[in-house]
Amino acid sequence: MNKLSEWKHVFKLDPQKTLSDHDLQLILESGTDAVIIGGTDGVTFENVSDLFDRVQPYDVPCLLEVSDIEVIAPEFDGYLIPMVLNSREKKWMLDIHHQAVKEYGDIMDWDQMVVEGYCVLNEKAKVFKHANCYLPDEEDVLAYARMAEHMFHLPVFYLEYSGTYGDPELVKKITNELQHTTVVYGGGIRSSKQAEEMSACADVIVVGNVLYEDLDAALKTVSVAKKSNF
Amino acid sequence: MNKLSEWKHVFKLDPQKTLSDHDLQLILESGTDAVIIGGTDGVTFENVSDLFDRVQPYDVPCLLEVSDIEVIAPEFDGYLIPMVLNSREKKWMLDIHHQAVKEYGDIMDWDQMVVEGYCVLNEKAKVFKHANCYLPDEEDVLAYARMAEHMFHLPVFYLEYSGTYGDPELVKKITNELQHTTVVYGGGIRSSKQAEEMSACADVIVVGNVLYEDLDAALKTVSVAKKSNF
Repeated sequence: MNKLSEWKHVFKLDPQKTLSDHDLQLILESGTDAVIIGGTDGVTFENVSDLFDRVQPYDVPCLLEVSDIEVIAPEFDGYLIPMVLNSREKKWMLDIHHQAVKEYGDIMDWDQMVVEGYCVLNEKAKVFKHANCYLPDEEDVLAYARMAEHMFHLPVFYLEYSGTYGDPELVKKITNELQHTTVVYGGGIRSSKQAEEMSACADVIVVGNVLYEDLDAALKTVSVAKKSNF
Repeated sequence: MNKLSEWKHVFKLDPQKTLSDHDLQLILESGTDAVIIGGTDGVTFENVSDLFDRVQPYDVPCLLEVSDIEVIAPEFDGYLIPMVLNSREKKWMLDIHHQAVKEYGDIMDWDQMVVEGYCVLNEKAKVFKHANCYLPDEEDVLAYARMAEHMFHLPVFYLEYSGTYGDPELVKKITNELQHTTVVYGGGIRSSKQAEEMSACADVIVVGNVLYEDLDAALKTVSVAKKSNF
């Protein structure tokens, strides 16, 4: 399923938040390359499945970002598996994944798994505290990015500023460094101007929270991202 | 440099232990596919470099297993980087490596690096305590092996029984499971009979300690391993 390397723009939908059918239709017919269902809090099998059922009729790839093994519903177009590189605990890097592979390894379809080297860069983000992260400096981030590409051969390196707008210069530096691993940027994009700026710095931008706060602004991020030649 | 997938037999030389020139010549002209220099205790830049200088004149690939960033000498044919999958600490899985990439990433030749998914299976081995490991059960080992191949795309999965002879059935099960990742077995091979048995179960066998205790027996492991069709 992995055409992720060809994508420019993705919407991230939070299964805990509410979207009317009309708004969901606007999102799914916006021209975005894909939607990701995922969140840190309150994600359940029920709300994931409910949202997926509403997305499925549309012709947009739908991926699940797996934050908890209990929420894995079938039939998604792909499953994003975060390895939190700047967590202080092996748990978020490997052990949860190991338990999942131990339990479901016999029936896993590896072609549907997309392992993300995840680097959380906003100290105030829920996921930062949840996964017991430390704040890496620029050289730390660069080293994680190199490891993601050269040591672990990961398809995705995800710069997660969740809830705040990030540093375009750092994002650009990382994207310039990586040849085979796709750099995904997420966090704080609230306008087409920001979408344009970050699209010039990352391979793919993820737009999330603004969907629930200013849908028009969110929808306008699609066309500018897809025009980017980066 | 990585022809490791074509190898059958490797000798592991401990830089802290003594070998006469005559014995070293016998080892390096034995027909073994490669030698690895490595150990857990007492490995220094000086004893690694000294041993490498004595091995280099021979036509046998020589790899350094990097246990400590301070011992990295140049000019090896390759560098084995262990990721200890069954360590309890992220340190042995990622953090030491991250520090090394942070410091030397600009000058690293990634083609020379061979990342090993390392699984330590002998509770009494020095490396088991050193890297704060837990003893995985069979299903744990299988899950680590699958992660090494499918999530991290590692070239090597290393079953390390260091100092004791392992379980051929488990080794065979793991080797049968992996398609692209080379399964290396190390530990306790003291006779050609054991070498023959483990060569039928793993892609590559590593013979170490017996070199220093019964050189004739060690040398006899080469031909049986290389005859194996596994």
